[in-house]
Amino acid sequence: MSQLIGLDWGTSSLRAYLLDEGSVRETRSRPWGVRHLPEGGFDAALRDVVADWPAVPRLAAGMVGSRNGWREVAYLDLPTGAEIIATALSELRSADGDVVHLVPGLRNPRGPDVMRGEETQIVGALALKPDLAARSTLLLPGTHSKWVSVRDGIVEDFMTLMTGELYAVLRRHSILGAGLPADADAVTDSDAFRRGVCAARDSGAAGVTTRLFGARSLMLDGQLDPAAVPDYLSGLLIGEEFRAALATGRMDAALPIQPIGDEALCARYRYAATEFGLNLSSTIHDAAAQGLWRIASAAGHFL
Amino acid sequence: MSQLIGLDWGTSSLRAYLLDEGSVRETRSRPWGVRHLPEGGFDAALRDVVADWPAVPRLAAGMVGSRNGWREVAYLDLPTGAEIIATALSELRSADGDVVHLVPGLRNPRGPDVMRGEETQIVGALALKPDLAARSTLLLPGTHSKWVSVRDGIVEDFMTLMTGELYAVLRRHSILGAGLPADADAVTDSDAFRRGVCAARDSGAAGVTTRLFGARSLMLDGQLDPAAVPDYLSGLLIGEEFRAALATGRMDAALPIQPIGDEALCARYRYAATEFGLNLSSTIHDAAAQGLWRIASAAGHFL
Repeated sequence: MSQLIGLDWGTSSLRAYLLDEGSVRETRSRPWGVRHLPEGGFDAALRDVVADWPAVPRLAAGMVGSRNGWREVAYLDLPTGAEIIATALSELRSADGDVVHLVPGLRNPRGPDVMRGEETQIVGALALKPDLAARSTLLLPGTHSKWVSVRDGIVEDFMTLMTGELYAVLRRHSILGAGLPADADAVTDSDAFRRGVCAARDSGAAGVTTRLFGARSLMLDGQLDPAAVPDYLSGLLIGEEFRAALATGRMDAALPIQPIGDEALCARYRYAATEFGLNLSSTIHDAAAQGLWRIASAAGHFL
Repeated sequence: MSQLIGLDWGTSSLRAYLLDEGSVRETRSRPWGVRHLPEGGFDAALRDVVADWPAVPRLAAGMVGSRNGWREVAYLDLPTGAEIIATALSELRSADGDVVHLVPGLRNPRGPDVMRGEETQIVGALALKPDLAARSTLLLPGTHSKWVSVRDGIVEDFMTLMTGELYAVLRRHSILGAGLPADADAVTDSDAFRRGVCAARDSGAAGVTTRLFGARSLMLDGQLDPAAVPDYLSGLLIGEEFRAALATGRMDAALPIQPIGDEALCARYRYAATEFGLNLSSTIHDAAAQGLWRIASAAGHFL
């Protein structure tokens, strides 16, 4: 095996990697998540994004394998790891006549809880930083943040907190976002963010639902600038994510927490972590590409 | 004094009462909350809603006195009660040349937290059920639910939980409401509701943010019928309201909890309360009209 086309195909975007012996030769991004496909659907999107690339094996991860994706791929139950994932790939034949292999999402019977796409980032992170495999707590922040517990290279537990989506719906559709300056999202008020984090932390066992309205009442009270409300709310919700995840007792807080994902977002989490006396390791980027390569390598049989 | 026009003027609706010695003679409702006024604004709305009624004193409570209302009335700080509220009324002259008196909202320095309109319902509830005055925990469920602690007729503490608004934004704008049958809101699945309540209760100190995504994953997992998701979500959020409010330690759970408001909504809370081993007293309705009468009586000077 020498080359692979890896597809990180989520709800809102499609990212394609041309990989050569594990190194990313080229990356292409399209705004064609599974809910925003171009005319011609999945086939047209794929044809466009791999145009001019060699006819090498293609492996896709993410919502492309969901019920509303190209083909539904059954979840794989925990505990599981890269080797097992590689034996559970699904495949379909695209309009160009070639095969696309699909990575299954993971299902945690505890909850139950599910992920699609993050499993590939987890595999990639463990490949990029092998000392995480023995025992680690991984954090993949986002619309649906994932906290993941890994032991001996196996995903043993994970949980989802809808932090990013809660922020978006409260900012756009609730009273908390009403009447704010139009550019309020552009402000980065680290003091307001920190105040939000601390309010969530200090809510103790009561939790953030007793503090959410405070993002409004502090503003009405003149204690919070209207332009700072989005950062305060972001702090409240990210602070709540730490408070709640730690309160479950399911994640080992004695381990360094390893963030995986977008640097700007991980930086917010790193800043929040300090208010909980925690240190986050430096962010792992591009884990999806490495995960796709690692799974394809383990799958061997089709390459 | 023999008659009063009481106006319960909120964000989404206007309700007018013609009161005669404390009894409601007539009630009129209009969909003219302070954000949905008819052409001609507040004056036109008032003219219409009191048409043909006698020219008697007029007292208004609710968002009509907010920053985006007819005239902003400063909040009154806790601790406070009916007698003090009655000395803090504001007034304006409407286009018909007569005065409209406005009830101030309350501000809890703890938080801070605020209310507008509920203070009048609280006063009304204490008038309707005098034995609440000595010591009680009041619950006014809704978009912004209020938990209120009363002692010797004085509001000593209150807090806001955005339960109703959280439900609305998550149901309409988040993944939790995506792809549900169009009539799913019409279903009342008491088992799904109860499961949601218990999931929130059993989340313990971690709280509901660790369970929200479950409304999606249980459905994907075939453990929750898509049509039952709204009731499950409602149970989760109302259950969280009990869990969180009790966890603050600020409300005396040894007292009977007195619900005030819409019967259908209070019935949901009553059902949820049983999962926490709590009993809610029978619902107090029409507290706003009684509160307006009681405050007007205490204000005496203008009547």
